[in-house]
Amino acid sequence: MGNKFEEKTISTTQIFNGKIVQLQIDDVTLPDGNTSKREIIKHPGAVAVIAVTDTNKLLMVEQYRKPLNKSIMEIPAGKLEPGEEPVITAKRELEEETGYTTKTLEYVTSFYTTPGFSNELLYVYFTDELTRLEEKKQLDEDEFVAVHEISLSEAEKLLTEQEIHDAKTAYALLYVKERINERG
Amino acid sequence: MGNKFEEKTISTTQIFNGKIVQLQIDDVTLPDGNTSKREIIKHPGAVAVIAVTDTNKLLMVEQYRKPLNKSIMEIPAGKLEPGEEPVITAKRELEEETGYTTKTLEYVTSFYTTPGFSNELLYVYFTDELTRLEEKKQLDEDEFVAVHEISLSEAEKLLTEQEIHDAKTAYALLYVKERINERG
Repeated sequence: MGNKFEEKTISTTQIFNGKIVQLQIDDVTLPDGNTSKREIIKHPGAVAVIAVTDTNKLLMVEQYRKPLNKSIMEIPAGKLEPGEEPVITAKRELEEETGYTTKTLEYVTSFYTTPGFSNELLYVYFTDELTRLEEKKQLDEDEFVAVHEISLSEAEKLLTEQEIHDAKTAYALLYVKERINERG
Repeated sequence: MGNKFEEKTISTTQIFNGKIVQLQIDDVTLPDGNTSKREIIKHPGAVAVIAVTDTNKLLMVEQYRKPLNKSIMEIPAGKLEPGEEPVITAKRELEEETGYTTKTLEYVTSFYTTPGFSNELLYVYFTDELTRLEEKKQLDEDEFVAVHEISLSEAEKLLTEQEIHDAKTAYALLYVKERINERG
């Protein structure tokens, strides 16, 4: 894409360099020549996996999300490690979070989650060829999740009840419905 | 939803209080009794509008996104003002960004955009009853956008070309397809 209405950087001020996010303020020149400040969260990027079992259920992970102060149900997902191919991360996160693995991860799409203030890019994969791992993999030491297998109609109920309440999982539900419509 | 795997706050450290985001670090107690730190971006929340014209085109806004250093095409959207009803924000953003207005904004869903590190909640509305404003409203002084009316097939091409490249707009495309499937 082009650079229409480009905002040129005058200077960048680093505010915070954390384990997950970095925060910086960019002073920019606007298209009309005026200046403004942009608050920017740098993020390493992430992956998510739309995983459908042989009984047509979606693999979901229940997880406490401190920013929301509640637990929600999400499709398996995780942050990219530096230099790691997204499809490798996707397989690892699927294995660690759900106890399933797959040989086929189909690339669905990628999108920025919040382009207004962050550069987090999310890569989305699909699989319906799952096999259960004999031995469960280790989660990160600060990660606690419960795995659920959820039908599309149950998932739509959870969406109404806001137990499913995040963008990638809302996207996944529409994607699976659309895929069923198209492929029967 | 419940508080499964709840992480209790031990202390909160404010790092940054900006125009759009606030950053804090929470020290938390994990379910196993260990402690960890959570990097949390507080955001006022936002709205987005899936707006379909009488010729079945989607209203899209082309906008430079400094965190990405590129321009992308998105459905109209904007931040909530403190205390403002999301549906009021949605109407205002539609008017300011596209030059159209509507009397009917149908609530579609809401979701957290990035529950892993931010509490940004996005409210999504739909309308296919648009009327053009006689006089265009003023954008924010640091906001520059170009409006486009895009068919679903054009939008899918832009998605492949990553000119559409954000979560809410990817969701909107699936939503409109699904709505056409269901209602004909």
